[in-house]
Amino acid sequence: MAKYTIGIDYGTLSGRALIVNAQTGEELAAAVYEYPHGVMDEALPCGKKLGRDWALQHPQDYIDVLAVTVPEVLKKSGVDSADVIGVGIDFTACTILPATADGTPLCFLDEYKSEPHAYVKLWKHHAAQAQANRLNAIAEQRGEKWLQNYGGKISSEWAIPKIWQLLDEAPELYAKMDKYIEAADWIVWQLTGVETRNSCCAGYKALWNKNTGFPSDDFFKALDERLEHVIDEKFGRDILPLGTKAGEITAEAAKLTGLKEGTAVAVGVIDAHIFIPAAGIGKEGEMLVIMGTSNCHMMMSEVEKQVQGICGVVADGILPGLYGYEAGQGCVGDHFQWFIENCLPKSYVDEAAAQGISVHKLLRAKCEKQRPGESGLLALDWWNGNRSVLVDVDLTGMMVGMTLQTKPEEIYRALIEATAYGTRMIIETFREYGVPIEAFCAAGGISQKDPMMMQIYADVIKMPVRIAGSEQGGALGSAIFGAFAAGSARGGYDDIFEAAKAMGKVKDTVYVPNEENAAVYDKLFEEYKILHDYFGRGANDVMKRLKALK
Amino acid sequence: MAKYTIGIDYGTLSGRALIVNAQTGEELAAAVYEYPHGVMDEALPCGKKLGRDWALQHPQDYIDVLAVTVPEVLKKSGVDSADVIGVGIDFTACTILPATADGTPLCFLDEYKSEPHAYVKLWKHHAAQAQANRLNAIAEQRGEKWLQNYGGKISSEWAIPKIWQLLDEAPELYAKMDKYIEAADWIVWQLTGVETRNSCCAGYKALWNKNTGFPSDDFFKALDERLEHVIDEKFGRDILPLGTKAGEITAEAAKLTGLKEGTAVAVGVIDAHIFIPAAGIGKEGEMLVIMGTSNCHMMMSEVEKQVQGICGVVADGILPGLYGYEAGQGCVGDHFQWFIENCLPKSYVDEAAAQGISVHKLLRAKCEKQRPGESGLLALDWWNGNRSVLVDVDLTGMMVGMTLQTKPEEIYRALIEATAYGTRMIIETFREYGVPIEAFCAAGGISQKDPMMMQIYADVIKMPVRIAGSEQGGALGSAIFGAFAAGSARGGYDDIFEAAKAMGKVKDTVYVPNEENAAVYDKLFEEYKILHDYFGRGANDVMKRLKALK
Repeated sequence: MAKYTIGIDYGTLSGRALIVNAQTGEELAAAVYEYPHGVMDEALPCGKKLGRDWALQHPQDYIDVLAVTVPEVLKKSGVDSADVIGVGIDFTACTILPATADGTPLCFLDEYKSEPHAYVKLWKHHAAQAQANRLNAIAEQRGEKWLQNYGGKISSEWAIPKIWQLLDEAPELYAKMDKYIEAADWIVWQLTGVETRNSCCAGYKALWNKNTGFPSDDFFKALDERLEHVIDEKFGRDILPLGTKAGEITAEAAKLTGLKEGTAVAVGVIDAHIFIPAAGIGKEGEMLVIMGTSNCHMMMSEVEKQVQGICGVVADGILPGLYGYEAGQGCVGDHFQWFIENCLPKSYVDEAAAQGISVHKLLRAKCEKQRPGESGLLALDWWNGNRSVLVDVDLTGMMVGMTLQTKPEEIYRALIEATAYGTRMIIETFREYGVPIEAFCAAGGISQKDPMMMQIYADVIKMPVRIAGSEQGGALGSAIFGAFAAGSARGGYDDIFEAAKAMGKVKDTVYVPNEENAAVYDKLFEEYKILHDYFGRGANDVMKRLKALK
Repeated sequence: MAKYTIGIDYGTLSGRALIVNAQTGEELAAAVYEYPHGVMDEALPCGKKLGRDWALQHPQDYIDVLAVTVPEVLKKSGVDSADVIGVGIDFTACTILPATADGTPLCFLDEYKSEPHAYVKLWKHHAAQAQANRLNAIAEQRGEKWLQNYGGKISSEWAIPKIWQLLDEAPELYAKMDKYIEAADWIVWQLTGVETRNSCCAGYKALWNKNTGFPSDDFFKALDERLEHVIDEKFGRDILPLGTKAGEITAEAAKLTGLKEGTAVAVGVIDAHIFIPAAGIGKEGEMLVIMGTSNCHMMMSEVEKQVQGICGVVADGILPGLYGYEAGQGCVGDHFQWFIENCLPKSYVDEAAAQGISVHKLLRAKCEKQRPGESGLLALDWWNGNRSVLVDVDLTGMMVGMTLQTKPEEIYRALIEATAYGTRMIIETFREYGVPIEAFCAAGGISQKDPMMMQIYADVIKMPVRIAGSEQGGALGSAIFGAFAAGSARGGYDDIFEAAKAMGKVKDTVYVPNEENAAVYDKLFEEYKILHDYFGRGANDVMKRLKALK
């Protein structure tokens, strides 16, 4: 008798449920629900205006995702809820909210409906930059060792800057709040009645380390006396490895979702990291890159190293029992979109229209005719700063080699190549620091749509590029965690690697490096490195001086 | 009784006559005649195909210009030819032809009608690059001192590579030819019956120096034994300063043109250098830049210095009695055209169309709103290599500072600014080498049409920018030389400076540096210099390596 699990993937604008065969990984049905409140970046529902760089969400939307999508996938698939053995949840992060001791979001209380800080702060809430800057300065000054686990700098998007902003601007609310909790963990709480904190969110977003715990109370006191006991008072120190069963569907949650009471629920996980099991990766040394507007690189290893410029190394951060590494490039799909909007001549738009194809497709057709190095162009992919390995938002783009014969498709291809060099730089940095990388897999929209770019990546990094097999990698990964949480006794798995192997998927297509191209790209990458270091490591800080002049 | 002179300006595609009041400089009438044969770069009139990079002209077209345009300006203006006291000629250069001892072009002889080398080689004939390369290598190896008068490298466009190519490929024709003569001098010969060679063409295009003469026979022998006596055999060593009267209109020429026999004719001059008197410049230290597809910088000085990267220093090269300097930037208007064709998005084309204006005008309107430095962009203007001061065709373009917010008009403005920094680099180099520059004047199409760009130049170079007053600067300058050749006894001038002052013109508009902008540009220029030297002087030869990879 087949068993099934449901993965629920909470994105920035909508939530999506997917019901999956727990033995084969077959995806039976999916359902999507768009958040009625979307991203609140201008005003609260009551009309109260928000400041610059704010981005909030409404937790009721998350509940409604459960109420709508889970019944829908059950109905569409025809699966009996008795055969659904587990549920997994992945979520954007750090997407975090203040709640009472029983898990009630403060924004549900009448007295706080008009208080912006009572709502969920979405990952891309950037109004805590001042707090992040202070935190980085103090941590560096104190020589906090954990800082190097995050490439030497933490982001304003993370949990501590966000809670510090809340304390600064709404101290009464801070006092009232019992819990400051990731939405990933909060929604699991709603399903199970049990508060848990997962190692992925805690490690990548809240400075937690499996061996050393959170930063010391002394450090938090140095930030602000009122924060001295913030971990014990608002977070809690009990961090569960990914894949752990958080609890079971409660009677109330069963009523909401149509699932059976007692169905296993896994602890939450970040919506990026979940792609690893979804791609069937269950061992160290295989990098997975999610390619979308930006590149997010993830990898597991048996060794814990402080690698320059990574976004984080977290024990149990991706799969239990291994160190999870994350790195990133700030500008990939965004880069190409910028080019299309700002640099593509009318004649190309007309040509694409005449052929009845998209401009992206036209450009790719033209690019495909170019041999590596033929354009004479080389770019640094820093239009949105450099995340890894330089961790410097003040770096900007650079291109060299233009002549009066340079064509738009050559510039376009140079931008693509630049992002591939950036990825190779990350790979080489990991290796330099003793973290092996032996295989490469790509996920995300670009990996599915752009074979030329995938071939360029293969040629530049000199490794075969496999492609994640599911178009719903987030939800599939969560379904895998659901199967692991259920355990073999219920028809799931006791070994997460086995679950990933059975249910995860890659496509048959593999992009194998072309040796001739790879040899040219080796030379071009040498040039990239020279310019990367010249502009990025202090030899010529012209980019920063130009930014300052702005 | 008013006296008049006629200037005849031979361009690449047409010749133009202008009749001018010799006292006031008033321009009475102009006439243009397009060369029927145009530029022959694919085949001879007989159908014989030409090689790659060839560019020929037919000398009959030059004669026809005289026959058509001179009578036309006389007729249009109503001036009696008895009141025309002088004629001046300017011409593209090095535009050069083989002739018999009596001045008959070899291509006029039936036996050579199908011989490409018998025709005029236009300035942009680039098929003698192999000869230029050999010449440069040998000159450098021999430590020829004159080489530094040309920035260390001579161009394939010049006279010696061209005659060497003729010798290599058509040795019989070489033997037959008595004269190898600039079209500027040849047309003067047709008018006067007297063969002259002017100091401007000889100095800038044929390696002649007033103090040291031509390179030694020994040098020419080192090039090719058959060239040992090339100067005496084909050129002649009698070089006349600019403004000198070459002779008088012959009876035959009078019949052709409608001018009176005995009218004074000045020696020829290059069509760029003639802009100096046309702008009323009659003293040392004022740089004139002709801004078109490229920038041509000219200047006079009382001192002779070997300045790095100039295109030439020639005694009597611009006006008699002073050293004439020439420098250049290979890519100015071409640069903006490249941008328009390859980088301007459809939305801008649509916006311009909706407003009923040109895209250039739309871009300028958007650019004008930007403050210096606001875009954070900086470019090296080397899309077509660097002529002065690096003299390196293998350099390419570079831009730094792009972000996802960068707009097309910011890139466009950065390209404009880059050309202004390139001009400032030339100015500073002159000064470094002890050649003073105290004033600045712009001529050519861009100077008339683009006030924003002129203001940027003023702000960058920190000198007021005056604008040449005539739209027919070439022909006006030639008319001034005609007045000097005629002399005061006939109603002209005995002093060329006086003639330039009386007849040359600048506009009333002067672009005065804005101090606040200039202070920002000072900082940006410092950054430009660092990158200029980094990419251009060997610290990182990435541009050359990228070109080699092509």
